[in-house]
Amino acid sequence: MSLYTAGILIIGDEILSGRTQDTNANFIAKNLTSSGIKLEEIRIIQDEKKIIIDSVKFFSENYSYVFTTGGIGPTHDDITSESVAEAFNKKYDTNTEAYNILKKYYPKGEFNTSRQKMAKMPSDIELIYNTMTAAPGFKIDNVFVLPGVPSIMKKMLKDVLLKLNRGIAKKITTINTDLFESKIAPYLNDIQNHFTDCSIGSYPYFNFLSKKGGVNIVISSWKMNSLDEIEKEIIKMIKFNGGNYSIV
Amino acid sequence: MSLYTAGILIIGDEILSGRTQDTNANFIAKNLTSSGIKLEEIRIIQDEKKIIIDSVKFFSENYSYVFTTGGIGPTHDDITSESVAEAFNKKYDTNTEAYNILKKYYPKGEFNTSRQKMAKMPSDIELIYNTMTAAPGFKIDNVFVLPGVPSIMKKMLKDVLLKLNRGIAKKITTINTDLFESKIAPYLNDIQNHFTDCSIGSYPYFNFLSKKGGVNIVISSWKMNSLDEIEKEIIKMIKFNGGNYSIV
Repeated sequence: MSLYTAGILIIGDEILSGRTQDTNANFIAKNLTSSGIKLEEIRIIQDEKKIIIDSVKFFSENYSYVFTTGGIGPTHDDITSESVAEAFNKKYDTNTEAYNILKKYYPKGEFNTSRQKMAKMPSDIELIYNTMTAAPGFKIDNVFVLPGVPSIMKKMLKDVLLKLNRGIAKKITTINTDLFESKIAPYLNDIQNHFTDCSIGSYPYFNFLSKKGGVNIVISSWKMNSLDEIEKEIIKMIKFNGGNYSIV
Repeated sequence: MSLYTAGILIIGDEILSGRTQDTNANFIAKNLTSSGIKLEEIRIIQDEKKIIIDSVKFFSENYSYVFTTGGIGPTHDDITSESVAEAFNKKYDTNTEAYNILKKYYPKGEFNTSRQKMAKMPSDIELIYNTMTAAPGFKIDNVFVLPGVPSIMKKMLKDVLLKLNRGIAKKITTINTDLFESKIAPYLNDIQNHFTDCSIGSYPYFNFLSKKGGVNIVISSWKMNSLDEIEKEIIKMIKFNGGNYSIV
C-alpha cells in the first residue's frame, strides 16, 4: 500500500502577530497520525491572496491531502475561498446548496450580504457540513477548506477524516528513562543505525525546581509491523547504563 | 525607516506527529510584534537534512531575520547545525568557545562524545549564550539557531532580541462588541476600504453554553502614527447598530 501524506495551511495574521496561539494544527496532526496519514509540513501564512494561492498550489501538488483553516467567514479579510478558487482556476460564485443551508439557518431578514458571502465558493466543490453554525466548508480536489474557530473546525474534521484513505497506522512506542540524554545518545545512535525502517526520537525534559529530568524515547515507524525488538534493545541499553525505565 | 520582517522555522517531527503542541512560535511571534518586526511566515518542517537546508536558504533570502528552534541537542536526530552549515556553505566543525563552555559545565569525565557534538557548528558564527544548560545556540548571517526546549529557548530569545534592529512598533487596538460578525461585516468592509494603511481584523467568538458571542475587532498598522480616527469610526458604527463596545 502507498503512504498517504498531508500538509496543513493555517491562514491568519492573528497567529503571526502572536495574538492567538494556534491549536488547530496540533488537533489535525494527532488525528492524521492516528489515521495512518503522515503530516509532512505545516505553514502559517498571511491573509494575502497571492501567498494563499501559491501555497495551496504547492501543497496540493506535493501532498496527498491538504487542510486549510481560517479565512472563510463573512468579513472583508476572509479571502481563503476566492484564493482557493483562483488556485484551481475555478469560478468563484454562490453555491446554491450552501446558500440554501445558510438562508434556512438565519432568522428571516437576517441573511444579509455578508452572510451570503459565506455561500460563495469555487465551482465543482463538495460541501463539508457544519452542524454547529451552518456555514459549510468545502473540498476541492485534495484540499479541505475548514474554518478557523477551533470548536467548529474540530467537529467538521471528524467527518472529513471518515472520507480519507487511511494508511496503516503509524506504530509508536514511548519509553521513558531517568538517564540524561547525552548519556544515552551514542547508544541510541547505534540502535538507530541498526534499525533503519523506524525513527527513534529523543525528547529530553528537565524540571528546574525539582532538578529532576529524563528523556522520552519515541520509536515510530510507518513501515514495520512490530516495534518489539527495538523496544527490547532500548530497555537493555537503559539497564546497562544503570537507569530506570517505563513504557509511557 | 525600513520595515524588518521575520520567518520562523520549527524543526521537529514531534510537532508534525501531534505528540507535542508547539508554543515556541507564539512566544517568538509576540516578542517580534512588540519589537516592531513583522513575522511573515512560520513553517513546521521534518527532521530531514535537505528540507532544513532548503527552508533555511529560502527564509534567509526572503526575511530580515530567521529563527529556528529544535534539533541542536546531542542525539543522532539533531541535525539542524550541520544542515545550517551546509545551507551557508560553511565547514561544520567544533567551535572552540562552545567546546570550552560545555567542558567547564559538565563534571569531570562526563563530557562525552554526544555532549561534544553540541559544540559542533558552522564556521564563522556568533554564539548565543545559554545560562540555563550551557549548550549555546548561534547566529549565522541573519539566522538565529535556538534550542527546542521552550524554557531554554525563551531565555535565550530575550538576549537575541536586544541585538535586532527594531522597527517602529506595530500599532494595535482591539475593540470588543457584542454584535454578530455578519451584522457588522459590511460596515467594517467600508471602513477598511477608507483606511488602507491599516489592517482591520475581525475575530468572532461564541460560547455554546451561554449562547453569548461577539467579535474582537483588531485594528493594526505598521505605517500609521495613530489609530484614533479609525477607532472612532468603528465605535460610531457599533453604536449605530445598537451594540455595546469596550476597548480591550
